[in-house]
Parts: sequence; structure tokens; C-alpha cells
Amino acid sequence: MTELLTERSARIVAARKLTRRAGRDAAGLFLAEGRQAVSEALATAPDGVSEVFATEPAAAAHSDLLAGAPVPVRLVTGKAAAGLSETVTPQGLVAVCALRDVAPATLVGTPPRLSVALAGLNDPGNAGTVLRTADACGAGAVVFGAGSADPYGGKAVRSSAGSLFHVDVVRGAPLEELLPVLRAAGVTVLAADGGGEVELPGLVADGRLAGPVLWLFGNEARGVPAELAALADARVRIPMRGRAESLNLAAAAAICLYTTQLAQGAG
Amino acid sequence: MTELLTERSARIVAARKLTRRAGRDAAGLFLAEGRQAVSEALATAPDGVSEVFATEPAAAAHSDLLAGAPVPVRLVTGKAAAGLSETVTPQGLVAVCALRDVAPATLVGTPPRLSVALAGLNDPGNAGTVLRTADACGAGAVVFGAGSADPYGGKAVRSSAGSLFHVDVVRGAPLEELLPVLRAAGVTVLAADGGGEVELPGLVADGRLAGPVLWLFGNEARGVPAELAALADARVRIPMRGRAESLNLAAAAAICLYTTQLAQGAG
Repeated sequence: MTELLTERSARIVAARKLTRRAGRDAAGLFLAEGRQAVSEALATAPDGVSEVFATEPAAAAHSDLLAGAPVPVRLVTGKAAAGLSETVTPQGLVAVCALRDVAPATLVGTPPRLSVALAGLNDPGNAGTVLRTADACGAGAVVFGAGSADPYGGKAVRSSAGSLFHVDVVRGAPLEELLPVLRAAGVTVLAADGGGEVELPGLVADGRLAGPVLWLFGNEARGVPAELAALADARVRIPMRGRAESLNLAAAAAICLYTTQLAQGAG
Repeated sequence: MTELLTERSARIVAARKLTRRAGRDAAGLFLAEGRQAVSEALATAPDGVSEVFATEPAAAAHSDLLAGAPVPVRLVTGKAAAGLSETVTPQGLVAVCALRDVAPATLVGTPPRLSVALAGLNDPGNAGTVLRTADACGAGAVVFGAGSADPYGGKAVRSSAGSLFHVDVVRGAPLEELLPVLRAAGVTVLAADGGGEVELPGLVADGRLAGPVLWLFGNEARGVPAELAALADARVRIPMRGRAESLNLAAAAAICLYTTQLAQGAG
């Protein structure tokens, strides 16, 4: 009979600390839960995965994925797995992964054709969704400015649906310093702003989305801080013919990023 | 000293039943919580508001809104207000409103230039977000098919950010019957489908978004049921140049609806 790690096992106690941001930053590790996240972690960054915890039912259900995994797979109790999860229905499958941060300088050296910066976006679900959309639209990097949700938190990882492993992540960069440097490096910085002076279709028409472009999105309720919006090449609004006052942040980001992808061509 | 309604007062006990779908459908009423929702309810459908409950702090904070309200404003305890709320931070301000359903026939008689149908979209936050986006893009109606989240639930109302009061809501219509009738009435029915045979930009190019158009969106994980997708004029995918497998449903809806608004012109 296999001995299962319990919630009191030293490895589980250590992993549980990764459910808090301070614990993640101290250890340089985070948890990726569920088949999609574990599968992406193993496929795109196997060297960054240190171990996988699985309940017996999860190990059986995902034996195809785990059989070839180049990392230790440790069987755990359901209670231990639940302690590593931030969902109401724990999936029983969690990988311990190295944080994937890259230095802000990466962005400056060879700016991606499309990138995103988040200023004070504080809902983890929205942070993960924007990361997923950025990935879908071919963005090379997402910068999480001060006050933004941590992309390595459980809810953000889940919402990103694996995209956290596809896109460069920059954290802790002071945006008030980074944006001017990026502009000097030839990046067009665009702040999404419901009160912006430029309409999105106008940017398409005058060729300003050709790139490299960085989109700056702000807080769900307050938008982009004025002092950061002032550093952008333009403050951009999405035209709306209906009666809604504004769009949900993740919806607005989807429209801006898709429009940019399209303007830059499919390649 | 004003007497406050408590969680045991008959009015509060009755209102509390509206936090469940069965209670809402039995009474023909729902709860709109928070300043934005109450304000939109009073502004756009005052005849549909039967009463407003407010804690003393909320009544003071929103005295501008409530002073002119053409409905009874009843002061309640914080505990009573919390019992009517589905949020972790109850706002202390709740309006009791009549359900706003319109008959499916409304859609057929004079089809809106843009409308939306949801097939099995079961996250209430997503349902409210799609309603908000549909409103922003000028949609006239949103149809909630069987198995979709209830737009009158607390979380959906909150996510809709007031848009529930701007757009016609159709519930319980069998989509497998409604879609062919709409097509016969001249509506182009488009199913959003990651595996669709038509790319969204192609629809713009060949003028098929000119309208009237109905977009059909499906379940977050499983998409549009095949038997409904088969009833559409086209199954449409959003081109993605990145590595994400798919877009979040609300993000995909934002891209489809905005693209349609743009193709139909700003007017």
C-alpha cells in the first residue's frame, strides 16, 4: 500500500505556503492546479517543475500525462490536495513550478510586437483572463505593475488557462519609469481609457497599431491612473453605440488586443 | 427613533426568497443591489420598482438618489441587508424590481439589428458580463436559453452593471425552435465556435454582419451544443496568432459583438 502525503507532511506544509504571495516570493515557486495547467507546465517549462502532487483518483485519471513526467509525482490525500487548492472543487492535481518572471530589460532590448501592462488591475480572475487573451492575440509579455493582482495566485493561474506558461511575465516594474523607456525604444504606448481622446478605429486607420505596441489597462473601477495615462502616446476609448456606461475590463482588453492583432496581420 | 426592518420582518423574509431563482420566478420579482443597479432601475424602469431597502448609512450616502425616488424607501438593519446580498461586502442598498422578461415573439416581429442568445452559459458573472457587453455594443435583446445562468441572480445583476435595465431579456425560449424562426424572419444566426469553419474577419469582408444578426454563445467549457450550432447560418471562429487554445467566453463575446457593431456602423 502506497503511503500518501498528508496535510501534515513537511512537503505539503511547505507547498501550502505557496498559496500566499509572500510564500511564493520567498520560495520563488508557485502552484499550478488542474490538468490544463500541469500539462502546459510540463510541456513548455519542464525544467521549472519541481514536483507534482496527485490524489490517487487524479493520478489514475491523468496517468497518460503523469507517466512520462520528468519530475517526481507524489501521491497525496484528498485533504492535502484541498489545502493546496483555491477552488471549491479541488482537482487533486497540483504542480510546484518556478516563478517565470523575466527582467523588464527583456522588453526594452527587443520589444515584442504586442505587449500588455496592467496598472492596479486587482481582480485575480481578470488578471488571468487578460493574460489568456494577450496570449491568444500573440502578445509576447504582460507586465504586472504595482497594485496589480499576482498572476501566480491560484485564481489567476486558473483563469489564465495555461497562458501563464506561454507569455513572458514581468512583475514589480515601476511603470512610471518603464513606459518612457519603452517609448524611447520605439514602442507605441496606448492607455485604454473610457474617456480617451482617440477612438480605437481611428488608430487602425492611421496605422498606429502596426507595432511594436504596448497596451496599458487599469483598475476595474478607476481605470488607468492619470499620471500613467499621461505617459502614453494616446488615451484610447472604445466607441459604444449602446447605453452601457463602460465595458468590463477583460472585455475591453479583448477588443483592444484583438483589434491590434488584426491590424498587425495574421503572421 | 426610526424603527428598522430586521431579518425577521415579513417584508425582509419575503425579499430574501428572491435570492433564489424559484423565489424570483414565483414572485415575478428580483433584487437589484448597489447604487448603480438601483439608480438604473429607478431611471429606466421606475414603474417596475416596488420598494427600496436601505441601511441608515446607505440611506445617508445615497440621499440624493433616494430623496426623489417614486417608491417607498424602507430602512433596514445591516443584518437584514446582508441577507438580501450575494456579495461579501453588502452595499446596504437593494431595490425590489419586477422581472423584465419579454416574449420571444418580440424578437421575431421586429428583429433588433444585433441580439445575443446564450446556450448553457452557466457562470452568472459571465452572463452579466455578456449582457453588459451586448448593451455597450447596441444589442436590443439577450436570450437566455435552457441551462443558462439566470440574469436576475445577484451575481449576474452585479456583473451586468445596470445593463440588465437597458436590454430586452428573453428567458426559457427553446432555442432549437426560436433560431429557425428568426432565420426565417431574416436574422443571420452566427454561432461562436472555436472550431468554426468561418473566420470572423471573413464575415466582415463579405458583408454578412450588416444585420440583423444574432450571435449564439455557448457553455464556458463545452461551447455551443452541436445541435444548435447546426441551426446557425455559420459557425464562426476568432483567429488567434498566439498559443492559447481558446479565449474566455466573455472575451470572445466582446470581440464578436464589437466587430459587429463596427461593421454595422456607429449610428
